Amino acid sequence: MASTQSRAVERMYRAWTENWKNPPPDPEPRETDDHWGDLTAEPRGVDYIEVDDGLWLVPRGSAADGAALLCLHGGGFISGSVFTHRKMYGHLAKAIGVPALIAHQRYAPEHPYPAQQEDALKAYTWLVGRGFDRIVVAGDSAGGGLAITSQLAGRARGLPLATALLLISPWVDMAVSGDSFDTNAAKDGFFYRDVVQGLAAMYIAGRDPRDPEVNPLYADLTGLPPMFIQVGGDETLLDESRMLEKRAGEFGVEVRRDVFEEQQHTFQMAAGRAPEADDAISRFASWVRPRLEL
Amino acid sequence: MASTQSRAVERMYRAWTENWKNPPPDPEPRETDDHWGDLTAEPRGVDYIEVDDGLWLVPRGSAADGAALLCLHGGGFISGSVFTHRKMYGHLAKAIGVPALIAHQRYAPEHPYPAQQEDALKAYTWLVGRGFDRIVVAGDSAGGGLAITSQLAGRARGLPLATALLLISPWVDMAVSGDSFDTNAAKDGFFYRDVVQGLAAMYIAGRDPRDPEVNPLYADLTGLPPMFIQVGGDETLLDESRMLEKRAGEFGVEVRRDVFEEQQHTFQMAAGRAPEADDAISRFASWVRPRLEL
Repeated sequence: MASTQSRAVERMYRAWTENWKNPPPDPEPRETDDHWGDLTAEPRGVDYIEVDDGLWLVPRGSAADGAALLCLHGGGFISGSVFTHRKMYGHLAKAIGVPALIAHQRYAPEHPYPAQQEDALKAYTWLVGRGFDRIVVAGDSAGGGLAITSQLAGRARGLPLATALLLISPWVDMAVSGDSFDTNAAKDGFFYRDVVQGLAAMYIAGRDPRDPEVNPLYADLTGLPPMFIQVGGDETLLDESRMLEKRAGEFGVEVRRDVFEEQQHTFQMAAGRAPEADDAISRFASWVRPRLEL
Repeated sequence: MASTQSRAVERMYRAWTENWKNPPPDPEPRETDDHWGDLTAEPRGVDYIEVDDGLWLVPRGSAADGAALLCLHGGGFISGSVFTHRKMYGHLAKAIGVPALIAHQRYAPEHPYPAQQEDALKAYTWLVGRGFDRIVVAGDSAGGGLAITSQLAGRARGLPLATALLLISPWVDMAVSGDSFDTNAAKDGFFYRDVVQGLAAMYIAGRDPRDPEVNPLYADLTGLPPMFIQVGGDETLLDESRMLEKRAGEFGVEVRRDVFEEQQHTFQMAAGRAPEADDAISRFASWVRPRLEL
């Protein structure tokens, strides 16, 4: 049974749904609204340094030998920030034992595709240029899809690929075609088909939702690094993680996919409070540390 | 009229009162519960570096010339942390334009007086020893009283005194004698007389509540630096701020005291969201910057 603590994630999504149906008179501007991050406990023992491209999270005593994490935050390409996701990625960086850079991302609809891909690739290129030779790209939700599409874009530009990808409830299917949008509709607190279709429309801005540049389910995934997908059993995006696993396998990519029963979309945001979130982060760390030679 | 945003502070206190009367079955351990800080928006543009004695908050572009802020967090000596208060003091450090150190403090009742005074004095001495020659000590609630008592203890040890004190709803009267415990009882969301008496008992651990070492209202305040007291008009601690102002004036200390009508105890925790909190922090900065030669 889902822990009491992890249910805070669902409560938040239900409140989002309520606000979406009945918008409050004076909502906080998305640029400064960082309440989403209230789900996460302080990781402690992590330093935070702002730079132009994002926010560095530096666990005390972390490796300083060429290994780093690049984090791409979720928020449907229209919200989220280095601040909402600071603590969750702080837990992940601390568990792995490497410094992490959360990249700033521009927002749709003002900045649709490929703005976020360019932002992600800029941060990745910066890390490569600084001599980081073992980079893990982590992303949640929209950031999970972005982890894949930005690697594909980097491959096209001849950049070295990442060491591994850590994908938290990745949102990859801009066609919003998964069966779980129906089968999990009553369980998922917010990501109803019409919500996700609306987000996709703002991001792809008229493109074909099956264009391989915006939808990895239709892309050539040859040569992508090993990926570890985590997904909640109760979320509407459950199906596309299965489709992504299948597609990646067809291209010979090493894939591990763990389904966390009764959990919501990006339940890892409850890190430091919910045992399921801490377990998930611990699984990421155990899987990726040997690949980083740690 | 109090802003909608500032009412979040009262809502939180009312929830605390509810939890105090009907404790939840599985409360979060105080050591890791940092939800209190959810009141505050991210200041942005501030870096956070953990050290053994506390947490450094370093606003980008802040002065690095001997001026610093030492912050003593509230929580009745039994709770609060560098993490709950990171954002509020981040706003203050950013407004003043100096780096700030929030000191770790041990908790009563395991560690009653003088543990917190020693912790504060240790951090202050460390700053003095590192060449900081213009130190402002800021404190909220229990930390406000501590700002005064630790200065008095430092004076007794021959340490140079601070440049100024910034006192946010300072809790100084361990005798809990102010009339506002009655007159504001219906307006204040949490700090009822019996709550504050209980906190005082854990801190003073059998001492006389009018002992000058724990109660600045009975201390010799000669030579204390200029102090700026801010207090909410609706809080039960309103009266003791008036008594403190009077007492300090009798000893020739320069005092400014601003009452913020319809505001709760340490309403500055809503910084970045409530206009009253931002106004209060801005008043602190304007008042103290010339004293720091900034």
